[in-house]
Amino acid sequence: MSSLLVVGSIAYDSIKTPLGEVSSTLGGSAVYFSLAAGLFHPVRLVGVVGEDFSQEDVELLRGRNIDARGIERVPGGRTFRWSGEYSADMNSRQTLSVELNVFEDFQPKIPESFRDSKFVFLANGSPVTQMSVLEQVNKPHFVMADTMDLWIQTQQADLLKLLKGIDGLVVNDSEAILLTDCHNVLGAGKKILDLGPSRVVIKKGEHGALLFDRDEVIPLPAYPVLAVRDPTGAGDSFAGALMGYLARNARHPGSSEREKDLVSPRLFKKAIGYGTVAASFTVEHFGVKRIAEVSEAEAHERFEKFREYLSL
Amino acid sequence: MSSLLVVGSIAYDSIKTPLGEVSSTLGGSAVYFSLAAGLFHPVRLVGVVGEDFSQEDVELLRGRNIDARGIERVPGGRTFRWSGEYSADMNSRQTLSVELNVFEDFQPKIPESFRDSKFVFLANGSPVTQMSVLEQVNKPHFVMADTMDLWIQTQQADLLKLLKGIDGLVVNDSEAILLTDCHNVLGAGKKILDLGPSRVVIKKGEHGALLFDRDEVIPLPAYPVLAVRDPTGAGDSFAGALMGYLARNARHPGSSEREKDLVSPRLFKKAIGYGTVAASFTVEHFGVKRIAEVSEAEAHERFEKFREYLSL
Repeated sequence: MSSLLVVGSIAYDSIKTPLGEVSSTLGGSAVYFSLAAGLFHPVRLVGVVGEDFSQEDVELLRGRNIDARGIERVPGGRTFRWSGEYSADMNSRQTLSVELNVFEDFQPKIPESFRDSKFVFLANGSPVTQMSVLEQVNKPHFVMADTMDLWIQTQQADLLKLLKGIDGLVVNDSEAILLTDCHNVLGAGKKILDLGPSRVVIKKGEHGALLFDRDEVIPLPAYPVLAVRDPTGAGDSFAGALMGYLARNARHPGSSEREKDLVSPRLFKKAIGYGTVAASFTVEHFGVKRIAEVSEAEAHERFEKFREYLSL
Repeated sequence: MSSLLVVGSIAYDSIKTPLGEVSSTLGGSAVYFSLAAGLFHPVRLVGVVGEDFSQEDVELLRGRNIDARGIERVPGGRTFRWSGEYSADMNSRQTLSVELNVFEDFQPKIPESFRDSKFVFLANGSPVTQMSVLEQVNKPHFVMADTMDLWIQTQQADLLKLLKGIDGLVVNDSEAILLTDCHNVLGAGKKILDLGPSRVVIKKGEHGALLFDRDEVIPLPAYPVLAVRDPTGAGDSFAGALMGYLARNARHPGSSEREKDLVSPRLFKKAIGYGTVAASFTVEHFGVKRIAEVSEAEAHERFEKFREYLSL
C-alpha cells in the first residue's frame, strides 16, 4: 500500500459569491486537497491550527479517510483566516482580508510515522518551507507541488531549486506564464519541464487543464457545472483527487524506483480526469460542503460521464 | 449524396501577428469555411468579389472541392478588404481598417442549381441577409448559422427571428453572453437553445468549444498547437469541417425529415472533433496557407491523435 502525505494550509474562510456567502467556514489548501484525495486513498495531513479550531472539524476530516495526527495545535493561537469576494462571472476574486495567525510561523514537522510517505503533495507555501518538508521525507516515490505568484515574484531562486527536486508541478495558467515569461500557456508548460519536473499540469479553471510530459501536451476540458456556487478550493480538490487516485493505483514500487516507473502516462491522465471531477463537486456548494459529503460511487459515476463526453 | 451550401464573405486580408505579417491575402468567412469543409465534402460557395479578385484564387478554391459558380463578380467593383493586428498572446485583435466594397450591398442570389442544398451554413452576416438565403433554399435538412456582436447589438429582433428557423448556431463565448445577458457561457448556451436552434456550439478559441443540445452540455478542448502563427479564420474553419463532416456522414434522409433524424448526437460530436482539428491546421500558418494545402489523410491522422488525447 502506498502512502500519501500533504502539507499545507488549514483555514477558516469567509466567502462571498453572486450566489450567497458563508463566514468562518472550514477551508485551506491542505483541507480541500485531503477531502478530495480521501475519496480514493488514506491521507496524512500536516498543518497548523489555533485553539479556535473546532473539534467538529477535526472529526469531519477523520471521517473522510484523513489521518489528522499531523495537525499541530498552537496553544493560545488563532487559525489562519481568509476572506474574499468573487466577481459576477466568478472568474476573478478579490481578497478582502488575510490573517495569517499561526500559519505565519508554520515550520512543518513531519511526524515520525509519516516520514515513509511515498506520495507527497506540497500545497501552496513558500518554496523554502516546501523544501524543508521534502528533506524530512524518506525517499518518496512521487512528489508534486503547487505554487503561486507571490513565491514566483519573491522567492524565485528557491522555487527553481525546489523544481529540480520534484516530479510534478501544478500551477494556474497565469502563474505558469509569470514563472516562464512565455506569452502562452503551451510554451510555458514546455519551459517548466526544462526546469525539473517530468510532469506539469496547468490549471485553467472553467477551461480545464493541460498536461505536459516529455512527449506530449494533452488538453482536457473542465466538467461542465451549470450552477457554480463557489469556486474556492477547486484547484486544491483537483490536485487532491489527482494524487489520491495516483497513490491508490500506481504500480507497487521496488525500493529504489522513482515516479517514472510507477505512474504511467495513461494513469496520470486518468488521475487528471478524477481531479477534474472532484473540482466539479467542490464548486457546486460553498466551502467544503459538497466535497466533504460526496461518495466515491458518485465520483466514479461522474468520471464515467466525463469519459463518455470525451469519447469521440 | 447530400449537398452543402455556404454563403458568406470573400475577402483580401492584411494580417499582422507577433510572428509575422501578410498583406492582401485570400480570406473571408466563406473561404475559410469552404476550404475546411472541402476536405470532407463538395462545397457550393456563394459570395461576392470585385474585379480585383484573382483567377489564381478562383482556381485554388476549385482545386479544393469547391464549386465556385456562385461567386458573383461585380464589374468595376473591388473585393472586401480587412486588415488587423493581433496582441502578443494572440487572444485579442484590433481591426486596423475595413473596406466593405462590393460586400456592402451584397444581396446573395442562390443559383438555381444550388437551391436543392440539404446542408446550409449561413456565415456571419446580417440576419436579414441570412434569412433571405434561407428563403431561397428548398427544404434544407440542416441549417447552421454564425453571427457576431454587431448584429446582436443592432438587429437583435431579426436575429431572434432567424434563430427560430435554423437547426444550429455557432457563436463565440463573448457573443453568446451578449446575446443572452447571462454571466457565464453555460447558462448562455442553455438559453440560446430556448430561442430556437436544437444545437448550439460555443467557441472559446484556445480553450475549445462547448456543445449544447436538449439533453447535455459537452465540453471539448482545443487541439494544442505550440506555434500559432495566425488565428484568423480558425472559427470559420471549425464550422466548415464540422458541416463538411456532417454532410458527408449524415444518414441519408427521406424527403420530409429534418435534422433530428439525420444528425445523431454522436455524429455531431465527432464533427466538432473534426472542426477542432481543422482550426488547429488553419492557425499553423498565415491566412489560408495551411488549410488550403492540408490533406484529408492528415486531418484523419490528427483527429485520431485528438481522440487518443481525450480517451480516459
